[in-house]
Amino acid sequence: MQSRDTNRAWVLAQRPVGEPDDDTLRLETGLVPQAGPGEMLLRTEWLSIDPYMRGRMNDAKSYATPVPIGGVMTGQVVAEVVTSDVAGFAPGDRVLAMSGWQDWTVSEGSGVTALPEGMAHPSWALGILGMPGLTAHAGLAYIGEPKPGETLVVSAATGPVGATVGQIAKLRGCRAVGVAGGPEKCRHAVEELGFDACIDHRTEDFEAQLKAACPDGVDIYWDNVGGRVLYGVLPLLNPFARVPVCGVAAWYNLSGLPEGPDRGPQIMSTLLRMKVKMQGFIVYDSFPPSAYDAFVAEMTGWLADGKIRYTEQTVEGLEAAPRALRDVLAGRNFGKVAVRVG
Amino acid sequence: MQSRDTNRAWVLAQRPVGEPDDDTLRLETGLVPQAGPGEMLLRTEWLSIDPYMRGRMNDAKSYATPVPIGGVMTGQVVAEVVTSDVAGFAPGDRVLAMSGWQDWTVSEGSGVTALPEGMAHPSWALGILGMPGLTAHAGLAYIGEPKPGETLVVSAATGPVGATVGQIAKLRGCRAVGVAGGPEKCRHAVEELGFDACIDHRTEDFEAQLKAACPDGVDIYWDNVGGRVLYGVLPLLNPFARVPVCGVAAWYNLSGLPEGPDRGPQIMSTLLRMKVKMQGFIVYDSFPPSAYDAFVAEMTGWLADGKIRYTEQTVEGLEAAPRALRDVLAGRNFGKVAVRVG
Repeated sequence: MQSRDTNRAWVLAQRPVGEPDDDTLRLETGLVPQAGPGEMLLRTEWLSIDPYMRGRMNDAKSYATPVPIGGVMTGQVVAEVVTSDVAGFAPGDRVLAMSGWQDWTVSEGSGVTALPEGMAHPSWALGILGMPGLTAHAGLAYIGEPKPGETLVVSAATGPVGATVGQIAKLRGCRAVGVAGGPEKCRHAVEELGFDACIDHRTEDFEAQLKAACPDGVDIYWDNVGGRVLYGVLPLLNPFARVPVCGVAAWYNLSGLPEGPDRGPQIMSTLLRMKVKMQGFIVYDSFPPSAYDAFVAEMTGWLADGKIRYTEQTVEGLEAAPRALRDVLAGRNFGKVAVRVG
Repeated sequence: MQSRDTNRAWVLAQRPVGEPDDDTLRLETGLVPQAGPGEMLLRTEWLSIDPYMRGRMNDAKSYATPVPIGGVMTGQVVAEVVTSDVAGFAPGDRVLAMSGWQDWTVSEGSGVTALPEGMAHPSWALGILGMPGLTAHAGLAYIGEPKPGETLVVSAATGPVGATVGQIAKLRGCRAVGVAGGPEKCRHAVEELGFDACIDHRTEDFEAQLKAACPDGVDIYWDNVGGRVLYGVLPLLNPFARVPVCGVAAWYNLSGLPEGPDRGPQIMSTLLRMKVKMQGFIVYDSFPPSAYDAFVAEMTGWLADGKIRYTEQTVEGLEAAPRALRDVLAGRNFGKVAVRVG
């Protein structure tokens, strides 16, 4: 439970090999930090749980600095400003900040964004109106480039990014085919989110089912996972297909190159023969600032008009965060996972 | 030897498994075809030999129809118009045509391009002033996007495309690092073509040498080959690197997925972490028509000014064409290979 006196923080105890386990993170308790001149004190309300967090646990060349051993786990939060000596922020304001997995932080304001007053769902700023929503919207606008009549396939179709990608594709006039783990998620994708079809990648004849669901081939494959789904989509790609590479969830826990056969030749030959563009991106630095404004304007309208549906799964308490991340990495979550911290 | 009476044609006898061999192609002899109304008779002077030809021998979903069994092998030629009932073409004209591997063809003019009169090197229309030159120029303009100070790596660096890519990169202000097979080719790339460095991919410590030659990482990897070179470049790619995928020569002879480990995760994770764009393309339909005009204008000037050097290897006689292709596929050629047919 959150307290006014102590700060709890999940720190990286050791780098995991493969799946994170009970020894990966350690809960430390300390004093609530003091905000000095030019600083403000933030109290975490909601912590976002996202697959990218697994990557930050590795000590690999990447787009972001890895979390150091003993460092607080990285994470975006919705927080309340408790005291403030920072221009533009007053006590009681609600903000978006990269506070990490802890109750309290002190900030001089950099990277902190004010949220509108009176948001009906503040935690949505971590999802459909935040990073995952922008990822879907800008990734499609700048890399996927959906055109009416095209077929889009998206993996992790009920995750916060995938669900948004599929729904935007439908709004753009595409056929949207999801891939998800298990019949319950697939049903949700079709019945709740409006996908044209959703295939369970855990079934034996997944590849044949996917092919049947894409009679005109695949023009856009939004890849959140890599692995079997990617390999199943490759033979279906149409000329000039686009593949936004948003995640490699199937491989986040790999500690080396997996056994063969080597799919490298299949990937590269497909790119060549079908003139495919495959592009990795990171939402924070792959798009111009105007992408954010376009996203907020369009997404706010869609939500108000009921054209986009959003599923959030609430996890209670900071102490449950490591389990929540492991669930997300294993695909045991359903929609966006947000931890209610205080 | 070319004759006025008979037409020799190399036809696909059977689809090769792995490397083409003596049973892959068969030389057939027939009558010279008759040009009817609205047609012209073309006599092949030069036949281009290119790595893509191996792909056309396969019966795979691709950007182009495979050569049928018993069909004449696909190939671009420089030809002389012998008789013509086609508007715009007169006997004695020299043209570029997709006649394939044979002495004589009849054409109604579609896909046939007139070459300027009095070209000093007509066969260059198959190389530096033709498809390979345009491939290099447009592929860089539209996908590679070289910027001054960047590092470009190109494989098959002394091939007709690679040599041009490296030289254009230099003209655009980049550091150009070649990869080629053997010390002679590497010396040629540096001493004759002006590359900053060229690494022999047959050496044991190729990866370490390549890394040392790219102290600032790699911003553009022009991939002609796939295989070990690609896997050696992946760890060197900088954020926002571009990878034009122009060929997979190391894998043309594959008849299935090779043994592991699976490099798929390495490819996809690199794309994601480094925000890499990897794009396959085919020169004939990946670029707007204006790309050709821009290429001719700039390349003609560069050649006139001595800023681009071009190496051509002449093979004598149509009968030598299959061996020439096998040499190209095995990297035994040096520069562009053109067969003097008649």
